[in-house]
Amino acid sequence: MTPTRYDWKKLQRYCARLFEGAGLLPEHAAIVAESLVQADLRGVDSHGVVRTDIYLKRIEAGLIRTDGRMEAEASGAVTLLDGRNNPGAVVGSRALELALEGAKRNGCAVVGVKGSNHFGTCAYYLLQAVQHDVVMMVLSNASQTMPPTGGVRPFIGTNPFSVGIPAGERLPFILDMATSVVARGKIIVAAEKGEEIPLGWAVDKHGRPTTDAQEALEGSVLPMAGAKGYGISMFIDILSGVLTGAGFGRYVNNMYENWDEPQNVGHFFVAVDINAFMPVAAFKERMDRYIDEIKAEPKAPGVEEIYIPGELEHRRTLERMAAGIELPASVVRQLQEWGERFGCDLSEAAFSGAQV
Amino acid sequence: MTPTRYDWKKLQRYCARLFEGAGLLPEHAAIVAESLVQADLRGVDSHGVVRTDIYLKRIEAGLIRTDGRMEAEASGAVTLLDGRNNPGAVVGSRALELALEGAKRNGCAVVGVKGSNHFGTCAYYLLQAVQHDVVMMVLSNASQTMPPTGGVRPFIGTNPFSVGIPAGERLPFILDMATSVVARGKIIVAAEKGEEIPLGWAVDKHGRPTTDAQEALEGSVLPMAGAKGYGISMFIDILSGVLTGAGFGRYVNNMYENWDEPQNVGHFFVAVDINAFMPVAAFKERMDRYIDEIKAEPKAPGVEEIYIPGELEHRRTLERMAAGIELPASVVRQLQEWGERFGCDLSEAAFSGAQV
Repeated sequence: MTPTRYDWKKLQRYCARLFEGAGLLPEHAAIVAESLVQADLRGVDSHGVVRTDIYLKRIEAGLIRTDGRMEAEASGAVTLLDGRNNPGAVVGSRALELALEGAKRNGCAVVGVKGSNHFGTCAYYLLQAVQHDVVMMVLSNASQTMPPTGGVRPFIGTNPFSVGIPAGERLPFILDMATSVVARGKIIVAAEKGEEIPLGWAVDKHGRPTTDAQEALEGSVLPMAGAKGYGISMFIDILSGVLTGAGFGRYVNNMYENWDEPQNVGHFFVAVDINAFMPVAAFKERMDRYIDEIKAEPKAPGVEEIYIPGELEHRRTLERMAAGIELPASVVRQLQEWGERFGCDLSEAAFSGAQV
Repeated sequence: MTPTRYDWKKLQRYCARLFEGAGLLPEHAAIVAESLVQADLRGVDSHGVVRTDIYLKRIEAGLIRTDGRMEAEASGAVTLLDGRNNPGAVVGSRALELALEGAKRNGCAVVGVKGSNHFGTCAYYLLQAVQHDVVMMVLSNASQTMPPTGGVRPFIGTNPFSVGIPAGERLPFILDMATSVVARGKIIVAAEKGEEIPLGWAVDKHGRPTTDAQEALEGSVLPMAGAKGYGISMFIDILSGVLTGAGFGRYVNNMYENWDEPQNVGHFFVAVDINAFMPVAAFKERMDRYIDEIKAEPKAPGVEEIYIPGELEHRRTLERMAAGIELPASVVRQLQEWGERFGCDLSEAAFSGAQV
């Protein structure tokens, strides 16, 4: 029987080999594979190796370039990076580098990105940024999935909002969230079980609020917090897309549906060097105190612990590093098929149980 | 009978005279008065001239300084501004100036602020920023009103999140929102009417979800969008407070309850010059197209129009400029009493009906 539990390091090497097979430079293949496996480790399976297949398909179709050539133009502490349609995680990683360098040079830096693709989770960039004692905000637009408040059909994406902040002895603050009420995946699960969904999660195809999961799937998921989430998703689209020259609204192409054009996703990175405000050690003490105080707050009935954003994902990472990453059979099959093409064997990445 | 409807310009001059009477420099008194009356014009009555009384009381009690002396320290494109406990709108306006100058010089700028006070609405700063072709994000922490997710009692404030973006022929994008589900004022109204509130607005004093408006008032209002709003409110507290050296969490004092210490509010301004990305005219064309496309979307049943953040507040402003600002009798009384102290007559600010 084909194994469904994988060792994260071996799985990462396996995926990197697939991306190399598809033409990426080895260092870029490693980045894309790392960003996907890290998402699986953190429990964000929707952004994990499940995406390998679509990334490879688009590369093969000539809709994502693999030459790694990008173009950056600086204007003071601002840089505009044209990803020239390279893989999103490659482009995002270059934006991260530019933002970190800029913040160290100028105290703060803004990097706007056009010509990019789906770049995985924002947390992938945040977790690197906090190691450099930098506060980082990463935004990205995405293809249309949510209507504007009062609208009927998708116009804005579930554009992610994210902020990473280092701490001292405590875990860093890693907030990485879609701007929708709920992941569409949860509505799919409810539909499969024949269950109702809470009012406010979605509208039907006429724009009417619905508790019917099936009607919701034919309609659209809603922005979180009503008009507030609509406004947040919109400003992310504007900074990532309108301001950078990338696509925005309908001009960000859906990677599963559009096989004629690149996605033209835009991102927006803001980096602030902690040293510009106070000595890093003093800041980290203040952060630890903040985290300790919030975690020591009295808890509501039935609540065992108050969490900081990113804390649960960190625990999941330790668990999955130790116990392996469980993949759905459909994902295993896809990865195997690509392996056959590129001469690598997925079973070698199976979790052996003997872990460090 | 005492009038309750006021001419906005005269009301602004009246409030400015009160602040001058309390010791503010004329230019600073004008700023504070403008920020309050602008909020009333925009329909954000909670941040309007209703705050005149508490500001004046804290000035009189020596808990807000009036000398206008602040201290700014620059490090590259980052500035740390110590407001030295001057009025929030005065400090915020200085931060705005520094952020605008910095963005014009460096393409982007970050201004962190400590030693400030309640600074009115964020929109007050955004509306100025967009006139300079700058994208501005303004954040502020506030005294404790919301529990962390899973908590019982207030720890974070309804820390506002805001972004302002210029457009061309269209209105600017002005998103200015509290990070709570709903304004506490709405719960007060429900309690007065004996009505239930929706589940998810608030918890009782034991941290249990409640639909009882009275129990909610004894408990806490909840962050918008569950854990997402908690995370957003928290990052605002960290950037505004932990990073700047201002108060954070319990160290931001409540201006109505703490009569021993200054508030020590912190703010965080991020400014990006549009010119660093593309010619302003090209950006404005793209913005107008974006806005036109979103407003032209099909509408849900019963919806007449799709709005852009700030659009309704702009219409309210035109209405109230033309028809006057209606003030509650309690606010009129407070303003009159302060006028008696400082030798000015509120009735001179009454709305005459003959408006331009």
